[in-house]
Amino acid sequence: MSTVPMSVHDAIAARRDVRAEFSGEVVADDVLERILTAAHRAPSVGNTQPWDFVIVRNEDTLRRFAAHVAQCRADFAASLPADRAETFDPIRVEGIVPSGTGIVVTYDESRGGDHVLGRATVRDTGLLSVALAIENLWLAGVAEGIGVGWVSFYDEEFLRDLIGAVDVRPVAWLCVGPVTEFQEVPDLERFGWRPRRALSEAIHHERWGRQG
Amino acid sequence: MSTVPMSVHDAIAARRDVRAEFSGEVVADDVLERILTAAHRAPSVGNTQPWDFVIVRNEDTLRRFAAHVAQCRADFAASLPADRAETFDPIRVEGIVPSGTGIVVTYDESRGGDHVLGRATVRDTGLLSVALAIENLWLAGVAEGIGVGWVSFYDEEFLRDLIGAVDVRPVAWLCVGPVTEFQEVPDLERFGWRPRRALSEAIHHERWGRQG
Repeated sequence: MSTVPMSVHDAIAARRDVRAEFSGEVVADDVLERILTAAHRAPSVGNTQPWDFVIVRNEDTLRRFAAHVAQCRADFAASLPADRAETFDPIRVEGIVPSGTGIVVTYDESRGGDHVLGRATVRDTGLLSVALAIENLWLAGVAEGIGVGWVSFYDEEFLRDLIGAVDVRPVAWLCVGPVTEFQEVPDLERFGWRPRRALSEAIHHERWGRQG
Repeated sequence: MSTVPMSVHDAIAARRDVRAEFSGEVVADDVLERILTAAHRAPSVGNTQPWDFVIVRNEDTLRRFAAHVAQCRADFAASLPADRAETFDPIRVEGIVPSGTGIVVTYDESRGGDHVLGRATVRDTGLLSVALAIENLWLAGVAEGIGVGWVSFYDEEFLRDLIGAVDVRPVAWLCVGPVTEFQEVPDLERFGWRPRRALSEAIHHERWGRQG
């Protein structure tokens, strides 16, 4: 790593959803602490900070989760029309065992009590707060040379049981570990699954649909 | 602004949910373009990039939205027990007119078609992707000296009508503009609404509840 801290724009551009590039080393404790500190500084509705981080390194747990994800991946593959199934075939969806560290990020809807400031009209702002923490974690990881891969091929109940979470919802499994490189082009673009959309297509002026 | 690009960790630490500190200037077009580029580089489930950005500067629209938000704020205040109502009283929940620019971030659940890679088992990953884009926008803003304030005191149908969004869901109204300063302590902490939680309380090892 360079000794010059990575800028926000550079980290955002370099960030990838990592599957195949984990080096096999395990993220150092002090680095992990800084990454989690970044996550924990995220904004949250009503300052509820409704997230928790369950750090999983037990090899048996990692392998059990990976086996479950492999089954969910196979189910998804079987649901696809032939041409999409062929495109999907070489795409990896996880680096659970190679990364050496899973972080299950959870959401506690009860945190903040009955009167959550800012959640009365838009209930999902609680759940969305958890994603803000995940993006902080992701970018802080890039700045530290650490790759993050979000795994979502799982049944929520399975993951809940796996980590013993009763009253909170597991929102994501993040594979976290040192990487050999960050790919220049996102996997799903490289493998032809889905191209990048032009920014201009995403911008509207004053009202929906007024573009260009 | 300094000419040295702001680091990821510094931006994450400096970021605030801005209400009162907008300077009254309007964000420059090239700066806004860089901030939206950062948002658009966010990860998304199945590379669906399900977000759009509706940029609102029409003063009448800003004022109409602000009036609606004021009513929602009053409704929330009226729902609080007396002690919480008193704490809430001085807390601002928006800087819609002073910021000069609103960005409504929307979610298109249909983008990506019937077979969204990674959304088959966890449906909310689409909505969560939108929050990842919002956090990129927020941090890129801080790096450019631009404040962002997420407003969630609104009825979704009102906002949908206001911007003419039919088939997409408005997820957030972001006030975006130059600021005089970023507060050192988040508003909801400063005003005694809700304190910061220690990071150690949010970290669990191997299983939920194994802490310290």
